[in-house]
Amino acid sequence: MIIDCAIYRHGIRETTPHEPDAIGEALASLDDPLDFIWIGLFEPDQDELARIAEPLSLHPLAVEDALEAHQRPKVERYSDHLFMSIRTITYDDDQIETGEINLFLGQHFLLTVRHGPGHDLREVRRRAEANVKELEHGAIAALYSVVDSIVDEYEDVTLELENDVQEVEASVFSHERTSDSSRIYLLKRETLEFRRAVTPLREPIHRFAVGAMPEETQPYFRDIADHLARVAESIDATDKLLDNALSAHLAQLSIQQNDDMRKLAAGAALFGIPTAIAGIYGMNFEHMPELSWTFGYPLCIVLIAALCFYTYTRFKKSGWL
Amino acid sequence: MIIDCAIYRHGIRETTPHEPDAIGEALASLDDPLDFIWIGLFEPDQDELARIAEPLSLHPLAVEDALEAHQRPKVERYSDHLFMSIRTITYDDDQIETGEINLFLGQHFLLTVRHGPGHDLREVRRRAEANVKELEHGAIAALYSVVDSIVDEYEDVTLELENDVQEVEASVFSHERTSDSSRIYLLKRETLEFRRAVTPLREPIHRFAVGAMPEETQPYFRDIADHLARVAESIDATDKLLDNALSAHLAQLSIQQNDDMRKLAAGAALFGIPTAIAGIYGMNFEHMPELSWTFGYPLCIVLIAALCFYTYTRFKKSGWL
Amino acid sequence: MIIDCAIYRHGIRETTPHEPDAIGEALASLDDPLDFIWIGLFEPDQDELARIAEPLSLHPLAVEDALEAHQRPKVERYSDHLFMSIRTITYDDDQIETGEINLFLGQHFLLTVRHGPGHDLREVRRRAEANVKELEHGAIAALYSVVDSIVDEYEDVTLELENDVQEVEASVFSHERTSDSSRIYLLKRETLEFRRAVTPLREPIHRFAVGAMPEETQPYFRDIADHLARVAESIDATDKLLDNALSAHLAQLSIQQNDDMRKLAAGAALFGIPTAIAGIYGMNFEHMPELSWTFGYPLCIVLIAALCFYTYTRFKKSGWL
Amino acid sequence: MIIDCAIYRHGIRETTPHEPDAIGEALASLDDPLDFIWIGLFEPDQDELARIAEPLSLHPLAVEDALEAHQRPKVERYSDHLFMSIRTITYDDDQIETGEINLFLGQHFLLTVRHGPGHDLREVRRRAEANVKELEHGAIAALYSVVDSIVDEYEDVTLELENDVQEVEASVFSHERTSDSSRIYLLKRETLEFRRAVTPLREPIHRFAVGAMPEETQPYFRDIADHLARVAESIDATDKLLDNALSAHLAQLSIQQNDDMRKLAAGAALFGIPTAIAGIYGMNFEHMPELSWTFGYPLCIVLIAALCFYTYTRFKKSGWL
Amino acid sequence: MIIDCAIYRHGIRETTPHEPDAIGEALASLDDPLDFIWIGLFEPDQDELARIAEPLSLHPLAVEDALEAHQRPKVERYSDHLFMSIRTITYDDDQIETGEINLFLGQHFLLTVRHGPGHDLREVRRRAEANVKELEHGAIAALYSVVDSIVDEYEDVTLELENDVQEVEASVFSHERTSDSSRIYLLKRETLEFRRAVTPLREPIHRFAVGAMPEETQPYFRDIADHLARVAESIDATDKLLDNALSAHLAQLSIQQNDDMRKLAAGAALFGIPTAIAGIYGMNFEHMPELSWTFGYPLCIVLIAALCFYTYTRFKKSGWL
Repeated sequence: MIIDCAIYRHGIRETTPHEPDAIGEALASLDDPLDFIWIGLFEPDQDELARIAEPLSLHPLAVEDALEAHQRPKVERYSDHLFMSIRTITYDDDQIETGEINLFLGQHFLLTVRHGPGHDLREVRRRAEANVKELEHGAIAALYSVVDSIVDEYEDVTLELENDVQEVEASVFSHERTSDSSRIYLLKRETLEFRRAVTPLREPIHRFAVGAMPEETQPYFRDIADHLARVAESIDATDKLLDNALSAHLAQLSIQQNDDMRKLAAGAALFGIPTAIAGIYGMNFEHMPELSWTFGYPLCIVLIAALCFYTYTRFKKSGWL
Repeated sequence: MIIDCAIYRHGIRETTPHEPDAIGEALASLDDPLDFIWIGLFEPDQDELARIAEPLSLHPLAVEDALEAHQRPKVERYSDHLFMSIRTITYDDDQIETGEINLFLGQHFLLTVRHGPGHDLREVRRRAEANVKELEHGAIAALYSVVDSIVDEYEDVTLELENDVQEVEASVFSHERTSDSSRIYLLKRETLEFRRAVTPLREPIHRFAVGAMPEETQPYFRDIADHLARVAESIDATDKLLDNALSAHLAQLSIQQNDDMRKLAAGAALFGIPTAIAGIYGMNFEHMPELSWTFGYPLCIVLIAALCFYTYTRFKKSGWL
Repeated sequence: MIIDCAIYRHGIRETTPHEPDAIGEALASLDDPLDFIWIGLFEPDQDELARIAEPLSLHPLAVEDALEAHQRPKVERYSDHLFMSIRTITYDDDQIETGEINLFLGQHFLLTVRHGPGHDLREVRRRAEANVKELEHGAIAALYSVVDSIVDEYEDVTLELENDVQEVEASVFSHERTSDSSRIYLLKRETLEFRRAVTPLREPIHRFAVGAMPEETQPYFRDIADHLARVAESIDATDKLLDNALSAHLAQLSIQQNDDMRKLAAGAALFGIPTAIAGIYGMNFEHMPELSWTFGYPLCIVLIAALCFYTYTRFKKSGWL
Repeated sequence: MIIDCAIYRHGIRETTPHEPDAIGEALASLDDPLDFIWIGLFEPDQDELARIAEPLSLHPLAVEDALEAHQRPKVERYSDHLFMSIRTITYDDDQIETGEINLFLGQHFLLTVRHGPGHDLREVRRRAEANVKELEHGAIAALYSVVDSIVDEYEDVTLELENDVQEVEASVFSHERTSDSSRIYLLKRETLEFRRAVTPLREPIHRFAVGAMPEETQPYFRDIADHLARVAESIDATDKLLDNALSAHLAQLSIQQNDDMRKLAAGAALFGIPTAIAGIYGMNFEHMPELSWTFGYPLCIVLIAALCFYTYTRFKKSGWL
Repeated sequence: MIIDCAIYRHGIRETTPHEPDAIGEALASLDDPLDFIWIGLFEPDQDELARIAEPLSLHPLAVEDALEAHQRPKVERYSDHLFMSIRTITYDDDQIETGEINLFLGQHFLLTVRHGPGHDLREVRRRAEANVKELEHGAIAALYSVVDSIVDEYEDVTLELENDVQEVEASVFSHERTSDSSRIYLLKRETLEFRRAVTPLREPIHRFAVGAMPEETQPYFRDIADHLARVAESIDATDKLLDNALSAHLAQLSIQQNDDMRKLAAGAALFGIPTAIAGIYGMNFEHMPELSWTFGYPLCIVLIAALCFYTYTRFKKSGWL
């Protein structure tokens, strides 16, 4: 489905018909090297994409890649155009959701093919169009605006992940008995998936930043490379914190178990005292003088109570109870 | 055993006699640089392979490697031909089964030597022959079709491994007592073996993708390199998830042990109450007024029951039972 | 807010008006290639920074970076100036506090933009001014003095971290029951944050040290690179020690649990003896000769006491109590 | 001690006197560039080696290295000869035994100096001599035959290590209580020592394989490099499996402990029932109607038995017993 | 403090006055490019070092580094001299003690500045002087002799560390209950510190070995590089063994705990039997025929004893006791 399609001359939008056939003509009409056409597709079927790929003469392998979602993020250079596949990431309730945006960049065109939920490219285009000065730099400026908005989203996800890790930390070190291992595991999983979306992009974006692109656009790609580096470092840190949190969780569990064991021991002692003493006075010896004392029974009860109380306070003091 | 042998002129199959002697003649008859002969062997013995190696003038070390299965995957360049050894992987019931396909690629020939179960090369050849346009590119196109089909299978195995990991996760975090460590171990083992099949191929395939092969075939090898990268990343992720799953399993075991210990303590207390009270009223003091009360016994039973009930609900509330 | 602004001719300070407009004039008045103007800002707002950026013709992306704190540390080279962003670190009570200093270095100017608490740049400037011979080398000498003072602070933090690790070690291996996992975790967290401040600087500073800067200043940057290497190695060592400390803590917890379990077992035995013996003499058999012995009861009590004492000393000797 | 010494002209052995003095003359008599003398020493003393080193003009540092065993494996190039030090490995009863073979390769000589038990070089030489065609390639072919036989032995050790790991796995996951940590530790130790023998050789052998040696011998060194890679990968895999096996062993121990704890709890309950009930009917209340029932006692016994049986089956069913 | 100072002409020692002023004159008198002056200092103060640095025209940053101990080991090249800072290591009672030797190497001088205890440089110099042939190669030969003696000491420390690890292993796997985690931790700490002394030297020494030094001295630096590699590999191995030893220690602790828990359970059962049976015969039912049997009591005791004995042997056999 073609979502939007427009020609940008000197950075100013001119709406064109959304027909695939019209695109070829429109392309032919562009003569300024910085004018371009920006086409936005959403989950096109094979035919639709093929009809648009033809006038842009896209490489069949890249077109195939753009059709199926769940590509590995990558940047590939074909003879006369560039293919880029990026994951869009949104994070909700410890759950990462990924979509995918595939971009074809040629001298005179930018074609975006979006899959899955998530990133609103219309909003990105609107913001880019508001900044005519930048779009004057040609199709690459449009590419920059798209990639930049995606990487900005990565940073948001980064912050949310870091928040979640702090929640887990608080839970691990709280005084309540918590079972954090499944949440830690889940966050590790998300971190891993996030990393798989980010890492493969770093190297090619870095290459753009240091030389593969026109010099005046390099600082912009350096900016993106820098954001990706920050995201990647945050992912690494998150990953290590989660490892440590799991180890600390295990240590906390051990401490709780020690506490329980000592409570068990203390409790057993508290029950053992009356049982043992009562057992002794339950013996049937004929000559047990205490048995015939008038106050034998109350004395015995007081003895038991006193011993239990003493033991209890001792355990309480030493932290066993 | 020769499974199939055919000449491809301009990508179109011409069946030839399967005799080793005929192969030399057939080779000599090829003059178009893109025509080639494609020979498929299955577990040949030394003699058989030697008779075919001779007209193709294959290097003796490569021939030796092709005879014995369980080679390390590799790509080697000899003066006038290329030797490639790839593992085929099928995955069944947490068990990886590996076969091996060895390929010799020369200007005018592709020789495949298959060992072990698994990959059906006849099917691959049929699909390749259906696409005459591609086979027109010569022997390298046939090589691509074989390698591509093997790497596609890797991706299937990848998905099944990921599924198995999800099963293990579900089991680890289920509320039942499970013993997942042996399954996790088994999956780690399979992951390791899978990695050993995939990793050694990545570097040489990458080299084909960026320059060692004719330029028009590079995007195809880039495609394979990309798939291998995806497979390798999935293996890495699987590996880390399994490590984390084992750690989480240990944490779950600790939690279960804590639960059991607390149940033990609570149970001990519940038995301790009647034993201690009954012990006291079993003492033989002469002056124990309660003993002669008419309702002494039922009162005592009610006391015991009440204490037990109270203790039980307290333990229940605090999660010890 | 402009904190300080001065011109340095041949390394000697000449105070100038702090007005942004005056800065342009002042710059124009500098003709010796080693004269420069050094401007110090503290948390400027967008307008303020923009007014100063204009006469220095700073790159808009770098200016944007300098405005917001919590940048990733980095060094970036623009066409005619250099942008450097460094974290300042202070360490207090197991808590790392980070500020940020952004530096713009041009032929004739050094602009420092400080965010957050921490590092006192006035003190740094005063010390630099005291050493006229060094400031004669131009703006880069001023840059060196700032960076050097920050990296020196890193080394102080390093020492305090190492101290804290030693405290944790002492606690882990003390004979008291301690719960060190949360402190170890906290220190790991600080170490991670510290590393994120230090690591990204190493590579660009190293580049200055081996060639990107005028040759006579290289040994100075080599000195900084060397300090950074020392800091990074100390961080690595701290990190590993903390990992080991956590493992050792787990081992200590296990040993404590073993001790407790054996105490529980020994205690249970000590209570079991009187209970069992008393139980036997509480049986109602008609023919139990001991029951009618005159010294049956005291003998029985002595037997119980002797057995308990013997058991107690045995357990004491074997370390179970 | 000189074990063997012979001249090979066109690959054919000519026995020569074993006297050091004769070696110089023999060397001088060789004029075909591929003729060479092959000298085999076993644990020579300093003098003996010095007398042979002189006519071969070996570098004193290399000679020193060749004298003492337990060198780090290495390949070193001196101005006119090559020095190679390799560990021979034999594996017996979970125990790696290492010997050492030092080789000096010159244009016209191969000198082998063997230390320690293990590898039988006479057998290697016999096999090499049987293959005149290969020895025709000169001293380097003799070197290849020695190195190849050592690396082949590495592969045998590899297989035995893998076997041992499988034994450990079987033991860890068996239903018996095993204490596998010391065996796992031992195997880790052997793996480490094995790795230290193999790793340092990989880089220099690889260099021979891609260019440092005459081109026609490269495939042979590529073959060795390939075997070393296979060995190294197997060591890596073994190492990781052992790590995982230890973790799994810990998990199994936890599970066993949980089982024991539950058995303890169940057992305590089974003893608690008769004790508590008997305690109640042992109370001395005057009015306990059950006590005077004719069938009170058998009913009570039946009640106890029934409760115990019920409890027992419940525990049995839930896996606590 | 100047410890020793001498001129070496053609490798032969000529004692000179130890006065700083005389050093300048002595230097000027050297004309053969291989003659040099070797000055040995021990913990000089700033003035002393400055007076010697002046005639040698040492770089002020290097001089500063040489004054303070606890530098990071490094090799730095200044315009006309080389600065090297090396840690000396001695190992005593699980405790690494480090000193430091700083070396300045110029065309005509070697200046050594020693800090801290440890390495006896006079002994090194005496051995070097005994070997006139080597000192003939100039100041670099003297440098080699110093560095070589330090690295030899590293190898001794390596052996002692390996010994200590073996002691720890023996303790971990002994049948006694040991608490090895603190010793393992201590050894890890020492290993870390040792690594920090060795690692930074490897890269620059390797550079000397392959080209930064005159060709005839390269084999000597290759020798040192080789020793450093051996030391570093041993450190790595020690490090891994210690990690494994700690894991194995944890496993042993778990096994001990299992043993204790089973002993506890078995003990509880042994006490539970008499308590339960005695309880039953302590019940007050009127009709309990056994109570009036003449041999009721001895039979009951025999029954209890038999059951206990049976249970005891069963537990003994199954390893619970």
